[in-house]
Amino acid sequence: MTSAPTPSTPPPSGNLDPAIAARLKRGADGLVPAIAQQYDTGEVLMLGWMDDEALHRTLTTGRCTYWSRSRQEYWVKGDTSGHIQRVKSVALDCDADTVLVRVDQTGAACHTGDRTCFDADVLPLAQ
Amino acid sequence: MTSAPTPSTPPPSGNLDPAIAARLKRGADGLVPAIAQQYDTGEVLMLGWMDDEALHRTLTTGRCTYWSRSRQEYWVKGDTSGHIQRVKSVALDCDADTVLVRVDQTGAACHTGDRTCFDADVLPLAQ
Repeated sequence: MTSAPTPSTPPPSGNLDPAIAARLKRGADGLVPAIAQQYDTGEVLMLGWMDDEALHRTLTTGRCTYWSRSRQEYWVKGDTSGHIQRVKSVALDCDADTVLVRVDQTGAACHTGDRTCFDADVLPLAQ
Repeated sequence: MTSAPTPSTPPPSGNLDPAIAARLKRGADGLVPAIAQQYDTGEVLMLGWMDDEALHRTLTTGRCTYWSRSRQEYWVKGDTSGHIQRVKSVALDCDADTVLVRVDQTGAACHTGDRTCFDADVLPLAQ
């Protein structure tokens, strides 16, 4: 049905630190999921996607940058809405296929106006 | 480079609530990323992957169940290690393409023995 991601070759023009690029395990689309978490409250704000360049920009600009799969372009969170994410720390997981970005979120993280993208659709658990 | 996920048809044998299955937006591989968060401390423990059946089992058994991309099988977290995840709540995000599971994690979430999968590989930020 699917296969686990394996290390892929970053684009030759990549700016990401080669030591990071070498261990990053991207999906077939060249992306890794990136979880944004409010650094002090622990709220999980949203999940976005990053390619090597988005991760590079997130590490070097202080602002969280994603790759928009729907718009097919880089997306600096808050550039349109003002709801920016200032980067506090960035970590890879043990498999180097997921990014956790701890941020200071200004205002709502969700485009709906909710504080997080997970506030509105809580699923029922079986009793 | 990639396209945004669109709703796909769940397998005919799917047990997942049809109302949830109808709005779930799966990747090309039929999976959605699932973030596991410790319900009381807010720690982001790990990211796994779920198909419809894994989400159904997570909602109905009280134990977090993932689809293992490397082993190509369902994986009830803790069945081997004893480090189980008791499900406290499950939410979809605003796009219905990511799951957030709040759990009570027994012991280490990470196979390395770390409490979370994000403890060991903190990336340097540019000054």
